[in-house]
Amino acid sequence: MNRKEIKIGLFGFGCVGNGLYEVLEKTPGMKAKIKRICIKDKTKLRPISSKHFTFDKNELLYDDDINTIVELIDDADAAYEIVKTALQNGKAVVTANKKMIAEHFEELLQLQKEYNVPLLYEAACCASIPIIRNLEEYYDNDLLESVEGIVNGSTNYILSKTVDENLSYTEALRQAQEKGYAESNPVMDTGGFDAKFKLLILIAHAFGVVVKPEEIFNLGIDKLGDLELGYAKEKGYKIKLIAYAEKTADGKIRSFVLPKFIKNTDKLFYVDDVFNGVKTKSYFSDVQFFSGKGAGAYPTASAVLSDISALCYDYRYEYKKLNSTDILECDSEIYLKIFLRHEIVYTKIFKSYFNEVNESYFNHEIGFLVGTISLSNLKIIAKWSNADSSIILFDLIDQETTHSLIQQEELEFELIA
Amino acid sequence: MNRKEIKIGLFGFGCVGNGLYEVLEKTPGMKAKIKRICIKDKTKLRPISSKHFTFDKNELLYDDDINTIVELIDDADAAYEIVKTALQNGKAVVTANKKMIAEHFEELLQLQKEYNVPLLYEAACCASIPIIRNLEEYYDNDLLESVEGIVNGSTNYILSKTVDENLSYTEALRQAQEKGYAESNPVMDTGGFDAKFKLLILIAHAFGVVVKPEEIFNLGIDKLGDLELGYAKEKGYKIKLIAYAEKTADGKIRSFVLPKFIKNTDKLFYVDDVFNGVKTKSYFSDVQFFSGKGAGAYPTASAVLSDISALCYDYRYEYKKLNSTDILECDSEIYLKIFLRHEIVYTKIFKSYFNEVNESYFNHEIGFLVGTISLSNLKIIAKWSNADSSIILFDLIDQETTHSLIQQEELEFELIA
Repeated sequence: MNRKEIKIGLFGFGCVGNGLYEVLEKTPGMKAKIKRICIKDKTKLRPISSKHFTFDKNELLYDDDINTIVELIDDADAAYEIVKTALQNGKAVVTANKKMIAEHFEELLQLQKEYNVPLLYEAACCASIPIIRNLEEYYDNDLLESVEGIVNGSTNYILSKTVDENLSYTEALRQAQEKGYAESNPVMDTGGFDAKFKLLILIAHAFGVVVKPEEIFNLGIDKLGDLELGYAKEKGYKIKLIAYAEKTADGKIRSFVLPKFIKNTDKLFYVDDVFNGVKTKSYFSDVQFFSGKGAGAYPTASAVLSDISALCYDYRYEYKKLNSTDILECDSEIYLKIFLRHEIVYTKIFKSYFNEVNESYFNHEIGFLVGTISLSNLKIIAKWSNADSSIILFDLIDQETTHSLIQQEELEFELIA
Repeated sequence: MNRKEIKIGLFGFGCVGNGLYEVLEKTPGMKAKIKRICIKDKTKLRPISSKHFTFDKNELLYDDDINTIVELIDDADAAYEIVKTALQNGKAVVTANKKMIAEHFEELLQLQKEYNVPLLYEAACCASIPIIRNLEEYYDNDLLESVEGIVNGSTNYILSKTVDENLSYTEALRQAQEKGYAESNPVMDTGGFDAKFKLLILIAHAFGVVVKPEEIFNLGIDKLGDLELGYAKEKGYKIKLIAYAEKTADGKIRSFVLPKFIKNTDKLFYVDDVFNGVKTKSYFSDVQFFSGKGAGAYPTASAVLSDISALCYDYRYEYKKLNSTDILECDSEIYLKIFLRHEIVYTKIFKSYFNEVNESYFNHEIGFLVGTISLSNLKIIAKWSNADSSIILFDLIDQETTHSLIQQEELEFELIA
């Protein structure tokens, strides 16, 4: 097979764009060249000659000599316009923008089909881990049961620092931003939105289902407090932000993004700092595990380059599962065992949402409950913004428990008395 | 892209062949069918109707209706004849036989080229881990520095049992064979030959270098004794059989298969039982880690099916690195820090082969040395079959140390006195 020559129009020259430029320079044998770079900020100093740059996106999007657009900007809405126009103009596109992909997945599928051009986005999920390619190519025949992982390097860095080095949340976040591991808007990371966008992409390639961002429940780590950090330490757990999706026996998809207590028997326990880790469980291959750097200029740039390299060989996602399976629905009847920290004035009302309470603690200000709750009730509690609550998952519970809450309440007062 | 219909002629119906049959039955949407199965043993009872079977290989190899040969037999020489004839007859081939591939790599490359047919063998390396595909496709642009892993499920199962459950080596080996995790000839596994064959394949796809099996030094776990098992336990290490290859700055390949002490800071520490784990280190992506089941009917069958599925899309290895890089040489000037158990009559002579001795112990029968030795001297010691020696690696040593052995000897006697 002959390699196609790739002439790139690059959008964005931040740390990843710059990384890509360097990576390309250092990669022998790649038939890919950046022809022009479109940037926004006219005042910023650039490490390479100004003749490479333009401020007019049309100079890239309507240049017939450019056959590939690489989009590495922060703004998801602007990225969407760029990607859409590029595909409509018959240009292959490589992007790392998970938010943009997640919000427009259906339409981006349609555009690829209509204009017969590939859109690749390996760098959008777990940077250097080739998870999309593996889900798409390697697991296309196996019966995947679940995908679970640490998919956000920024929050994992923060969590590692708060736990291992006893840094405050604010200090750890600051360090993450300083090192370029956190996005410009930190709530996308710390609120679990970034993880959700990635999970949506993983679900499409793992199970052939396109869900909307609002269909996946996400909580982040931005409310983590000393009580739950201490609880984790005492029990020998680590808290990790987990993206989870499984296909149930009756063909439904269960998915969410939640902070979770991870035991040391779980491979994810050892995924620290900016590393990401993904476990796939399938009928024939059992549990597979992938880990690698999930943030940073070079790992992301390397994933982008891997997509560019694939374009040289006319690679494209076939979306085999999307085209072959029945439409699956999201399952809202999930039961979860969780830890809920809250102000004590809310104990009684919060407890009434639980199906079962196994542990309860309070002092004069705050308390926590450990017990089983349905996802729909959890959503209600999570909306109670005054309650200073923090939610950490233990595990999914397979069946609804039927314990009476009144009995539970009696038990609890006995324990506390 | 349309899926090509795959009509399979299957050689072998042992646990993997049988697994493949079941996996195919349970996989919806695969356009692949087993037309005929060639087996050797006429007396063995089979779980499916006898009309599927033949004892004449030519009924598969010369059937124009069969476009794909899947070879899953134990005998590497017979497998080679089958694969060669199949390729010469223009049939795509999927095989899991690492020994056969390793021994005929150059020729198999040539046959693929000459007859323009693909040969896929993902199942030959780490069963369910898609390592070849990732080295071939995903890392084709990145600058790989090293590949290191536990690539033999059988020995890892044995090691896990001897260490975690205090089973004897013989008992653990027996259990591994009983569960179908050990090949019919256990020395291939326990002597590190199987790992070496896999390493040879990994080196070709990682670095674009074809080496011969005899160019890679291998020691196995078959001489492991209580002394070194106790030493590992005392220090909190695990002993794992490691396949290692790196590309040095001056373009040479360093590779070997050796038992190694693994610390709990290493991801390989947590790869137990029949699981395999591979770490790749590259210039841009840093360390990536893959793990999954490395033995067993289903994981292997699943990898075979993944190759069959890839054939539906006309996939083939491009061997990009083999075609693009300069020819690299094996580096024989490697220095290793090792643990050497031996009968005490050999202490003096063995010590003279070391560049530096850091620890020394002996009782009335056996002793051990810990120190730095060159790979060429290690090979000499390993050949000394009477000495009841056992060798475990600590780590590669970057530069030759220059300590005088006489000084070392004095130091040691002081320590022992």
